Amino acid sequence: MYNQRMHALGNEPSAIRELFAYGLARKAEIGSDKVFDFSLGNPSIPAPAAVGRAIADIAELPPQDVHGYTPAQGLPAARDAIARVLNRRHATSYGPDDLYLTCGAAASLSICIAALANPGDEFIVISPYFPEYRVWIEHAGCSCIEVPARADDFQLDVPAIAGAITGRTAGVIVNSPNNPVGSVYPKGDLEALADELRMAQKRTGRDVYLLADEPYREIVYDGLEVPWVPSIYENTLVCYSYSKSLSLPGERIGYILVPPAVACARDVYAAIAGAGRALGFVCAPALLQRVIERCADEPSDVEAYRKNRNALYAGLTALGYECVEPQGAFYLWVRALEDDAEAFALRARAHELLIVPSDSFGAKGWVRIGYCVAPEVIAGSMSAFAELMAEYRG
Amino acid sequence: MYNQRMHALGNEPSAIRELFAYGLARKAEIGSDKVFDFSLGNPSIPAPAAVGRAIADIAELPPQDVHGYTPAQGLPAARDAIARVLNRRHATSYGPDDLYLTCGAAASLSICIAALANPGDEFIVISPYFPEYRVWIEHAGCSCIEVPARADDFQLDVPAIAGAITGRTAGVIVNSPNNPVGSVYPKGDLEALADELRMAQKRTGRDVYLLADEPYREIVYDGLEVPWVPSIYENTLVCYSYSKSLSLPGERIGYILVPPAVACARDVYAAIAGAGRALGFVCAPALLQRVIERCADEPSDVEAYRKNRNALYAGLTALGYECVEPQGAFYLWVRALEDDAEAFALRARAHELLIVPSDSFGAKGWVRIGYCVAPEVIAGSMSAFAELMAEYRG
Repeated sequence: MYNQRMHALGNEPSAIRELFAYGLARKAEIGSDKVFDFSLGNPSIPAPAAVGRAIADIAELPPQDVHGYTPAQGLPAARDAIARVLNRRHATSYGPDDLYLTCGAAASLSICIAALANPGDEFIVISPYFPEYRVWIEHAGCSCIEVPARADDFQLDVPAIAGAITGRTAGVIVNSPNNPVGSVYPKGDLEALADELRMAQKRTGRDVYLLADEPYREIVYDGLEVPWVPSIYENTLVCYSYSKSLSLPGERIGYILVPPAVACARDVYAAIAGAGRALGFVCAPALLQRVIERCADEPSDVEAYRKNRNALYAGLTALGYECVEPQGAFYLWVRALEDDAEAFALRARAHELLIVPSDSFGAKGWVRIGYCVAPEVIAGSMSAFAELMAEYRG
Repeated sequence: MYNQRMHALGNEPSAIRELFAYGLARKAEIGSDKVFDFSLGNPSIPAPAAVGRAIADIAELPPQDVHGYTPAQGLPAARDAIARVLNRRHATSYGPDDLYLTCGAAASLSICIAALANPGDEFIVISPYFPEYRVWIEHAGCSCIEVPARADDFQLDVPAIAGAITGRTAGVIVNSPNNPVGSVYPKGDLEALADELRMAQKRTGRDVYLLADEPYREIVYDGLEVPWVPSIYENTLVCYSYSKSLSLPGERIGYILVPPAVACARDVYAAIAGAGRALGFVCAPALLQRVIERCADEPSDVEAYRKNRNALYAGLTALGYECVEPQGAFYLWVRALEDDAEAFALRARAHELLIVPSDSFGAKGWVRIGYCVAPEVIAGSMSAFAELMAEYRG
């Protein structure tokens, strides 16, 4: 006498969660320096000092000025601060009313999906993909249509996406910098995708929205620029979170941007407000809204991730592993040494290497190595990766 | 090309919201001391000093120990602290695994509804009722069945509730202390309801859950005790929030309690975890979880509300208004001086009195006066209420 679908979701084994739990137990057993835990996407860099100062400052304010209800769309001052940062960075002219603050990227996406779609609609995702996309899409009564990324470089396969669009397609979710692959989609590919989406809109007579899921926007390497998707395709909604850029994943603070160029922008914004209500979100946490008001322009510290990426990529490549060189985010995508990625991850575990098989992300034959870890974990893991390789080479 | 139901929800005129916005504009126009704003349920008492101290202490911790992801069900230490407080207060023996932390009561309820019900099911609510109940129930594809409270004292009409139970009834939502009426349901009535629910379960062959929505549990007057519902009816889930008891409504922190006596308790808990996932909640805000870990036993300061209640109830009764004397929460339920409560509230507005017509709560002919305000607002409003009465008496 409960909802079976929810029950199944709540009981669903999660490879990542189980691996993390295994890691905790294993570390307690043999010592945390002997386990190489690459399972999670919990930022290893602490939140910037400015965040701590902001919290301390806010704690000094009269509590009634801090903890009351905010408007459902968020404090005007926080939305204004975010709009100003976006405008300076992307040469845009957004206003606070184009922003809707949320409890993080999961809320941003689940709200957008519920706001845009009707039961029976379809959303296209690029596999490998963040597994919760499917959960939110199916909860809205819609179908999750997987289009694989290009096999050689895990970039957008624009013709394949175009071919998957039907009269029921409500949106396409793109995640760049990408979890789990680390790729950043270049402007040219996004322009080609925009052309296809515009043609599809003409063909089917309905708007197709691009949901740009961008929690890793600031975490990029080698001076790479992440194209600003709304400047490329007008029907883009940006789903953002400060989880990764300010290392605040537990605090649940992010936003949805509905640029004025979006078709029926004010109606879409109203539908987002309605979806936030229907899902049970009242407002984003008030204290964190005030932190963002003060810290929206705080730079992300990517230096430690860059060093980790270089060490891990160079080390594994030298050992003979096939890796996709990450351009952003903090995950390395590595080909498993046998077809069955789950079996491979299990054999890695015997070497105290905790890595996530690609099956969790809707793809076969690869593993995700999260390198948001202390540098010692990477240095210490190299001999284990060498032994693992030796085991396969016999 | 968006979801029309979400769009309608987002654009729906809310009497409370509009009144509040009107009040802000009006205060700017004629001075805030000239407008008597009783529209909101935003606590006027500041959060306890212990909350501020806890936030300041937490801000001193290494940020990586504060802001990371927590388990979806919440930090074990926070759940343990809450369980210990409940056990001491109610002579129970709950454990941390019976608790699921949420982003406030709205999340608690929307998650429970999604977890328990299947499309086509029914939830019974007691009118007048908090209007979002209907939104969450309908979002789960279920029907919201209104059963009016008793006309004379706005207490539970147990035979009417029993008569409304069908084979499709998934649950009954009770909210005591009650918003908007201020009533507290006595133990005898809850026991009678429990008997009826047990009989209905036998008759229909399905579990009927009582959802006890209890954000106002600690806000009661005259030494009244709010009965602990799970000790009266075994299939009770408690939906709690610290919004009112600790004056933290903007922070979105609360919990769901699934007592072990609930039918299929672990399965219901799993369905709750699944619903939290499907709706897009990842975890309750981590910093606030740590605040609750430290402040779960902090007493609520109800003295100011008690004084306000006494002044408002005595004042309006003396002027000839018919009022339900509040036993808890911070709302006074007053009979409108004409059948059309909306017209009455509009005439009150001409006297700078901002009060919410009962239509918002699924009832006709009354108004809600929120007295979580500064005492000066109540004192200053009395002449306006006198003029309003005089206007009607001619």
